[in-house]
Amino acid sequence: MPFGRDRAGARVVALAGGVGGSRFIRGLHLAAPAAHLTAVVNTGDDLARYGLRISPDVDTVLYALAGIVDDVRGWGPRGDTFRAMAALERLGGDTWFRLGDIDLATHLRRRELVDAGQTPSQVTAELARRLGIDGVTVLPMTDDPVATWIQLAEDDRWVPFQEYFVRRRADVPIRAVRFEGIERSRPAPGLLDAVGTAHLVVLCPSNPLVSIGPILAVPGIRDAVRTARSRGAVVAGVSPLIGGATVKGPAARMLRELGIEPSAMGVASMYADLLDIYVIDRVDAGLASKVEEQGARPIVTDALMRGRPGERRLAREVLRAALGPAREV
Amino acid sequence: MPFGRDRAGARVVALAGGVGGSRFIRGLHLAAPAAHLTAVVNTGDDLARYGLRISPDVDTVLYALAGIVDDVRGWGPRGDTFRAMAALERLGGDTWFRLGDIDLATHLRRRELVDAGQTPSQVTAELARRLGIDGVTVLPMTDDPVATWIQLAEDDRWVPFQEYFVRRRADVPIRAVRFEGIERSRPAPGLLDAVGTAHLVVLCPSNPLVSIGPILAVPGIRDAVRTARSRGAVVAGVSPLIGGATVKGPAARMLRELGIEPSAMGVASMYADLLDIYVIDRVDAGLASKVEEQGARPIVTDALMRGRPGERRLAREVLRAALGPAREV
Repeated sequence: MPFGRDRAGARVVALAGGVGGSRFIRGLHLAAPAAHLTAVVNTGDDLARYGLRISPDVDTVLYALAGIVDDVRGWGPRGDTFRAMAALERLGGDTWFRLGDIDLATHLRRRELVDAGQTPSQVTAELARRLGIDGVTVLPMTDDPVATWIQLAEDDRWVPFQEYFVRRRADVPIRAVRFEGIERSRPAPGLLDAVGTAHLVVLCPSNPLVSIGPILAVPGIRDAVRTARSRGAVVAGVSPLIGGATVKGPAARMLRELGIEPSAMGVASMYADLLDIYVIDRVDAGLASKVEEQGARPIVTDALMRGRPGERRLAREVLRAALGPAREV
Repeated sequence: MPFGRDRAGARVVALAGGVGGSRFIRGLHLAAPAAHLTAVVNTGDDLARYGLRISPDVDTVLYALAGIVDDVRGWGPRGDTFRAMAALERLGGDTWFRLGDIDLATHLRRRELVDAGQTPSQVTAELARRLGIDGVTVLPMTDDPVATWIQLAEDDRWVPFQEYFVRRRADVPIRAVRFEGIERSRPAPGLLDAVGTAHLVVLCPSNPLVSIGPILAVPGIRDAVRTARSRGAVVAGVSPLIGGATVKGPAARMLRELGIEPSAMGVASMYADLLDIYVIDRVDAGLASKVEEQGARPIVTDALMRGRPGERRLAREVLRAALGPAREV
């Protein structure tokens, strides 16, 4: 299945969280600009602030695909300022979740659209359109409210994900993770169609516990990926861990604290029923035979995405492994 | 009643709208820094945007008293930027009511405090405290929802005040004004006490129809001012019209369109049951005898407030006329 030029005709679905996922999706779009690409994004991290609804992973993917993301931080609009937050701090406001002035506009607009009766997936489509995103469909995993909670080891208290991740800087031991509302959540409109007709489903290099985890836990999504696989679609995972560490975020530490091996292999074990292909870094080459034992084909490569060329290169390797070499002319 | 130094012991209540009212109140505070000053501010112009609650007149008074208001525009924080609005515009958002980045912080904080269960007057007190306002109590006229609606002459359609005032730039003929919810509204806590113990009540140079009008229409407030007067308090009005025109805002035009004489005298006639003293500009000196005929003592002076010295001077003249000369040492 080489497909047309620039992978025209290929249908690719990528499940993703924030920074790592958004980078890989951007790489897919660069490597296969003519493919039909659907990004399915975690919403368990969503939070409400000042009556506004913030969807950090969706926004990171949108900003990345729109080419306006701050590439150093990996999230938020490039060149954003924090004048509203500074003023809010002077007024005694709660500012631990810092919203830039340009970023705020996204949340004001989301509120406006929600008030007009739009669903999260409709809001996401409108934001994507206004940001000039073309050729990638961005879907929240669900239109239903799902909230990731983290149990802190220090006092067994459950806190909303962002309170652990941002406020506590993910610098406290955890005991458990749960997704409130997940049982009653339904995949966003179009999601099952996209997975059901995909040639390739990618589990992006995102946190397997709190980014890919909630997506696969929405009733019907994991089954849909398995079904797609059984009818010939390829499922490829890209390890977010390189040499037992993450480029960004607390995945390694969280895995360890929850009793899962903090390595590329530990992540692969969480996707054992899904993977055809699994991408690991050269420093993890020793894990290749274990990946094979689990039934997946290991791709050993440079798994670190350095800038857009790096994102594109890694995505191209995954596309080649899953779909065969691209047709050149 | 000269009171102590800097009018210590004097109790003054000022009813006000936005720009003109906030300037006069600032003048009162400069002229009588030791007086007990209560500002009662119109909330009929309040509006909701993006789930935030905006109280333009209250905010203008707060910004003016905090010394952070943009003195050229007369409203909004000095040096504010509009980065969120610019980004919101790119996202297709509704931006005709332009909120600056620093101004936004006030509305985020208000939302936060309202969500925590605070009333508008509690929110106002907290904002005043955080803004470092000292010596002036700022009260919204009511904690209950009141909305000023304007009927447009062009098609008899009723629109919320800000849609007429900001969106249509007050540049369309009007037919009527009404205050939705006013019958069931109650004066904010502390308001009747302040009026009931005041030595002086000032009707600031604000729009009599849509700024002072709603305040006096809250059941109990107009009666309280009349009662205060009957027990010896002085009620002073300051004309917002000079030579039939306003410094800022559409008061003259609105009066004309509603069949009220667009002059200092037209305004005085709306306060006929209240006024002991009425301040008019020298260009309106010819109206002095009419003011007297109505039963009020005319003060003919320079009624234009040029900067803070001008605000202070005008306020001092009102204080002198109402309370007698200030005690010097």
